[in-house]
Amino acid sequence: MPATLRILLIEQEAERAARIVEALAEAGETDVTVLSAARVLARHVAQARPDLVLIDMAHPSRDILEELTLASGPLERPVAMFVDRSDAALTRVAIEAGVSAYIVDGLRADRIRPILDAAIARFHLFQRMRTELAATKAALEERKVIDRAKGLVMKARGATEDQAYALMRKAAMDQGKRLADVAQALVTAADLLG
Amino acid sequence: MPATLRILLIEQEAERAARIVEALAEAGETDVTVLSAARVLARHVAQARPDLVLIDMAHPSRDILEELTLASGPLERPVAMFVDRSDAALTRVAIEAGVSAYIVDGLRADRIRPILDAAIARFHLFQRMRTELAATKAALEERKVIDRAKGLVMKARGATEDQAYALMRKAAMDQGKRLADVAQALVTAADLLG
Repeated sequence: MPATLRILLIEQEAERAARIVEALAEAGETDVTVLSAARVLARHVAQARPDLVLIDMAHPSRDILEELTLASGPLERPVAMFVDRSDAALTRVAIEAGVSAYIVDGLRADRIRPILDAAIARFHLFQRMRTELAATKAALEERKVIDRAKGLVMKARGATEDQAYALMRKAAMDQGKRLADVAQALVTAADLLG
Repeated sequence: MPATLRILLIEQEAERAARIVEALAEAGETDVTVLSAARVLARHVAQARPDLVLIDMAHPSRDILEELTLASGPLERPVAMFVDRSDAALTRVAIEAGVSAYIVDGLRADRIRPILDAAIARFHLFQRMRTELAATKAALEERKVIDRAKGLVMKARGATEDQAYALMRKAAMDQGKRLADVAQALVTAADLLG
């Protein structure tokens, strides 16, 4: 966690915003930017790249909830959302979109920090899983391409599997490329050249 | 979500338990079993197989938190945990162990249902990701085994890659087995027989 937590707070009511900022200051080193309208959220997020987005709103419609969630970038940073009222369907929308903390009728200044701690921990847990899933999928795809390329080399050179693999490895090393990239080039060439 | 939500509630204080049960009954169809001591949690969870475990405790130590989390089976069902006080480290322990809702100082009867809705939605999101990750890892492992087996057949029979694959596929179909299982049998045999 960074030493100073940079928070973008979306809060329409000035008084409530002031109370939240104060509570956050008491709970630790934070650098809070307050935005009173959600309209320009995406642009502010892109510019300020906050460590966390904190959204407080009364009664979100499904459209507004989806829009705000998307604009806050819940896959790039923890997003904590406070709403006064919700139902199970709306809650599901927020959580499936990646919101790390979705709190109904629970905004109390002295409780914010533990909620943010939980949102940050949950975001990192999710991000680790997403990263692992992406890496495993990429490994599976690369393996498929390498196998296809190996088959092409075996056929063209009358080589055994081991020989084909060794040839591809050598080409990759000579060119300072990854084996998977050489394999992809081979597969593309074979597709183009018939 | 099942029509009737079967909840196992761990709550030491009888009065607080009664209020929670009442609030849950007002918010929807629930079947709540109350357990006053956490000692026998694992056994109760195994017997009752609740849809959700709800744990309320004052000031958990790290040991107790880990023990309760493990006993409640957070990877098999949503677990919502309410504590009076926590810190960022303890919060992280609970969330990384898979607790779906970790609420600090937020137990209020009328707010429980939305928290449970969020816990259930989050649990399903996580479970989907875990399932996808496990399936992708298994596909990658199977592919490795199939490739090794294919190489063995190519060498033993002087076959091309396609021929080796066709031979393995036929063996699998004849035996009513999956290709990956035939491949695993081949690899095991080759390891044993040298």
